[in-house]
Amino acid sequence: MKQLETTTAALIRFGDLDPMGIVWHGNYIKFLELGREAFGREHGIDSVEMYGIGYFTPIVRVNVEHKAMIGYGETVLIRTWLQPSPAAKLIFHYELRRKSDGAIAATAETVQVFLDRDKKLMLDVPEFFRLWKERHQMA
Amino acid sequence: MKQLETTTAALIRFGDLDPMGIVWHGNYIKFLELGREAFGREHGIDSVEMYGIGYFTPIVRVNVEHKAMIGYGETVLIRTWLQPSPAAKLIFHYELRRKSDGAIAATAETVQVFLDRDKKLMLDVPEFFRLWKERHQMA
Amino acid sequence: MKQLETTTAALIRFGDLDPMGIVWHGNYIKFLELGREAFGREHGIDSVEMYGIGYFTPIVRVNVEHKAMIGYGETVLIRTWLQPSPAAKLIFHYELRRKSDGAIAATAETVQVFLDRDKKLMLDVPEFFRLWKERHQMA
Amino acid sequence: MKQLETTTAALIRFGDLDPMGIVWHGNYIKFLELGREAFGREHGIDSVEMYGIGYFTPIVRVNVEHKAMIGYGETVLIRTWLQPSPAAKLIFHYELRRKSDGAIAATAETVQVFLDRDKKLMLDVPEFFRLWKERHQMA
Repeated sequence: MKQLETTTAALIRFGDLDPMGIVWHGNYIKFLELGREAFGREHGIDSVEMYGIGYFTPIVRVNVEHKAMIGYGETVLIRTWLQPSPAAKLIFHYELRRKSDGAIAATAETVQVFLDRDKKLMLDVPEFFRLWKERHQMA
Repeated sequence: MKQLETTTAALIRFGDLDPMGIVWHGNYIKFLELGREAFGREHGIDSVEMYGIGYFTPIVRVNVEHKAMIGYGETVLIRTWLQPSPAAKLIFHYELRRKSDGAIAATAETVQVFLDRDKKLMLDVPEFFRLWKERHQMA
Repeated sequence: MKQLETTTAALIRFGDLDPMGIVWHGNYIKFLELGREAFGREHGIDSVEMYGIGYFTPIVRVNVEHKAMIGYGETVLIRTWLQPSPAAKLIFHYELRRKSDGAIAATAETVQVFLDRDKKLMLDVPEFFRLWKERHQMA
Repeated sequence: MKQLETTTAALIRFGDLDPMGIVWHGNYIKFLELGREAFGREHGIDSVEMYGIGYFTPIVRVNVEHKAMIGYGETVLIRTWLQPSPAAKLIFHYELRRKSDGAIAATAETVQVFLDRDKKLMLDVPEFFRLWKERHQMA
């Protein structure tokens, strides 16, 4: 079983900063979304495409651990990987690093569940996801 | 022909501020939306309700003139009014004041058009809006 | 030892919503900030005031558990309380409810540490916070 | 006198979208900032660097004309140029295009003024900006 991962980058804007001159913590959620979407594009498991075939994958848990600040002009490197799991869930992990010095700015985890077209929680792994995991040797 | 208007208030959060310690200019767009939605609720012309009956009212123009800064702990008073117009448009004007000293922080204008269910631009005033204007003595 | 808490409300704007028509999960971080700041105003322990007397209190952990969706026109009730703790930390808990039906939309926790003027981590409880806790019978 | 310009790109995230599945109009302000900062980096006239040498350059006017919608998965190309002007102002123009089909999504203009260290409006062009304009044959 191998680990799939993707790294993407985000440049900090002035408007991302708070009065301390560092990225406001609420903006990290956008970095996680950037990472998750980059992963989805690279490995073919995009939220919007899943929605297109009838699955809604809302976020049910977000955990962020802030380790170091990020300032203006910095670029954040967002490494995202999917945790292997037999559950009907998408569990992503994230590591955010400052490009300038490689310091870990934050680690994070998000959990998504699958809802069907009627927005009913799916307790079993959807068929398309079971096949996707097989194809990627994650099952 | 009378002028319909609504005033609503917004409290500034830490996360609204930029490194200068004042509200980041991009956040003013949220205040305009707050004002427009308060107007819609009070006078019965809410964007989401219009969507519910088949009309999509996208914003096609935003103009903001910044006059004074807004800091932490301030409350912004947002006065919103609809400009009388025979056109198939919603033209809103806004005046944002600091509650603490009454200073005008910004004035603004937004223009919305009407699209039908097929997202085609409507050149004529939709019937429901013609009736609404009559009811409010704006036609 | 009593529990201090504060409840505040936030009205959902159109711009808070995602393509599913529900509040985008990243916007919950703003609700937590609203709750924390309402608590600070009510109980005299505001982040910006702490900064004014020399303490910087960055968020080092955010956990959010999403339980139910929030749609347009909803009002969210944010209940915020401080967890009693001997550590040099501010540990806040949050419960977000839909006002319409009282359903719990999310629960959350944030942890803040104290940095001094030189942005050095304080391992001991700052004197002003020790006194605040005594005054509020939390020590 | 030549025209200086810069083009930068932004990828649309799910969280940028509104319930209509298009980029919420308020997010365009972020694209303008991205364009302005890319221009600043390329041509050596960055807001934060100007702040570092004693000038604060707040936005006093924002005008956006929305021409076409932008959906999920799109990349926006932001072309930014500085309008030659003898005034003590920074007047930027922007053209936003959808990368997929080249359609103009929006045009925009922002105006910034110069404040000195005491946050007093400067009526004369700051020396550093006069020299910058000479160096770039814009004066």
